[in-house]
Amino acid sequence: MAMKKFLNDPANITKELLEGMTACYSNKVKLVNEKIVVRAAPKCECKVAIVSLGGTGHEPAISGFVGEGMLDASVAGDIFAAPGAPKVLEALRLFKREAGIILVTLNHAGDRMSANKALRDAQKEGIKVMEIVTQEDISAGIDIDPEEKRGLGGCIPLFKVIGAAAEQGKNIDEIYEIGQRFNKQMATLAVAMTGCTHPQNGGVIAVLPEDEMEIGMGQHGEAGGGRSKILTADETAAKMIAPLMKATGVKAGDAAMLIVNGVGATTLMEMFVVYRKAAALLAEKGVKTVPGICDELLTVQEMAGFQMILCKLDPDHVELMKATANSPYWTVN
Amino acid sequence: MAMKKFLNDPANITKELLEGMTACYSNKVKLVNEKIVVRAAPKCECKVAIVSLGGTGHEPAISGFVGEGMLDASVAGDIFAAPGAPKVLEALRLFKREAGIILVTLNHAGDRMSANKALRDAQKEGIKVMEIVTQEDISAGIDIDPEEKRGLGGCIPLFKVIGAAAEQGKNIDEIYEIGQRFNKQMATLAVAMTGCTHPQNGGVIAVLPEDEMEIGMGQHGEAGGGRSKILTADETAAKMIAPLMKATGVKAGDAAMLIVNGVGATTLMEMFVVYRKAAALLAEKGVKTVPGICDELLTVQEMAGFQMILCKLDPDHVELMKATANSPYWTVN
Repeated sequence: MAMKKFLNDPANITKELLEGMTACYSNKVKLVNEKIVVRAAPKCECKVAIVSLGGTGHEPAISGFVGEGMLDASVAGDIFAAPGAPKVLEALRLFKREAGIILVTLNHAGDRMSANKALRDAQKEGIKVMEIVTQEDISAGIDIDPEEKRGLGGCIPLFKVIGAAAEQGKNIDEIYEIGQRFNKQMATLAVAMTGCTHPQNGGVIAVLPEDEMEIGMGQHGEAGGGRSKILTADETAAKMIAPLMKATGVKAGDAAMLIVNGVGATTLMEMFVVYRKAAALLAEKGVKTVPGICDELLTVQEMAGFQMILCKLDPDHVELMKATANSPYWTVN
Repeated sequence: MAMKKFLNDPANITKELLEGMTACYSNKVKLVNEKIVVRAAPKCECKVAIVSLGGTGHEPAISGFVGEGMLDASVAGDIFAAPGAPKVLEALRLFKREAGIILVTLNHAGDRMSANKALRDAQKEGIKVMEIVTQEDISAGIDIDPEEKRGLGGCIPLFKVIGAAAEQGKNIDEIYEIGQRFNKQMATLAVAMTGCTHPQNGGVIAVLPEDEMEIGMGQHGEAGGGRSKILTADETAAKMIAPLMKATGVKAGDAAMLIVNGVGATTLMEMFVVYRKAAALLAEKGVKTVPGICDELLTVQEMAGFQMILCKLDPDHVELMKATANSPYWTVN
């Protein structure tokens, strides 16, 4: 069977997609050193730089969030693969500055390994860099060792919060504290209805029976253990928001942001239906939701499903969410 | 087979999705009279209002483009169905003003019928309203009667241009002229790789053999006549941009905007690869592309495919594209 994707030579997908993204949004981003996406107009060196890394095939993440008020740079890997440590180090060298760099790493083995090596090498070279690791997937449990928790789409609202703080000229310790506090108060849970195909080798990822769905699936199809018959949108929303509320510790009177991140084939139509129910359940508990997002932020090819992301927000986080942003896929004015 | 969608009672999809969208983006939009989406904060009555209409199931279109610098109101129909004339008339009454209203109608039989009746009734009531009809699908031919051409995703950049003109306080005749000039210089061509399922009745729309694609398919799966074996991204881009250039009359030295509108399951990854080639072909001909869009604007459920939209821009259109916009799914700052 021919793969039903619009592609050329599979070996060139990452190169071509980065060229296309930076051509399309040339007013916001540009491509340097082949796999590093940076802002079209860099911000003042007097401010802390925010850098992240990750495999491609998850568009718009991660490179689509480079821009004013968000990331300064994204280091792209091949499809579903972490970039190598030398490429991450290259990016850190590009953004070397007295104010320092915050490197955001999603908790996946390859990303952690590259980030750790690049961090050590950069620090040896006198580059000031601090790392924030996202590990907010609660599919394996809420109270387990964070090292066992994957980083899913929750990195995107984190980029927004610390990107805005950096833009305001806060120092690296302040930004680190804001980011880690945000991190501890957010959680993600994913659900899948169908698998998808790896765009390079055509391999089928995560087969699901015709009448089943799976809560807890990772963003490369990793099993989450929560298989069931297909539930309604409201049942699904209820089943997901309850553990997310528990994990974030959100309670009556708190502000929270709810994001429904479509991972591929699931329509916005469905995401809105799910959002509506989850937001209603939050409201029932007295939680005040600030404006949220239903959109594709971090995707898994043409998989049907979504990640529900709940962020408990402190007052400073609420303000940082409202600040100007101008990346290709998150714009606030 | 159970439908692989997150839904509740199929009869309530439209109601629930509109509730979800307006809950999520409560800072930008709100729902009135059940199926009319309006801005959270209305603009000055001294300015021309821009209203559009259309069936749901194509999210984010059309209601996701209500907001500052874009639409004032969207009148939503049921899934894949035009809203009735009485509901359109209700929206026109809500926005009655001396400055007048521009109603944008996509050329589909149901939408035209409702819009025509509502227009006549509104005019009888002394409501000042002018209509712009989009009919830019070139799949049936470039030089055929415009009445035979469907309105596809090209309505979205039109909303941007006339929405910005209205925000600047231009009068209704000026906005109408800007819009019609934009309309004549833009064209859309769609391509599909897979069909999709109707979310209410589970009916399969547009079956395509495993190794085939179809250029020219309409947004409800209407046949376009351009079936072929699956082509590469570059071949597809070349085959689509050539007739679009012919239809828009774009030539060396002209400015143009290129949009790749994903209709469902096709990834942004693929859209970027296609954009890159189409933009390169425009550059080869000396056309200057302004920043474009790769995203899902007007979708067809979980169909794999995209619409390529090419807009030849006059200098005033270029400026209007850059103006501030603040709708849920098109934001410029």
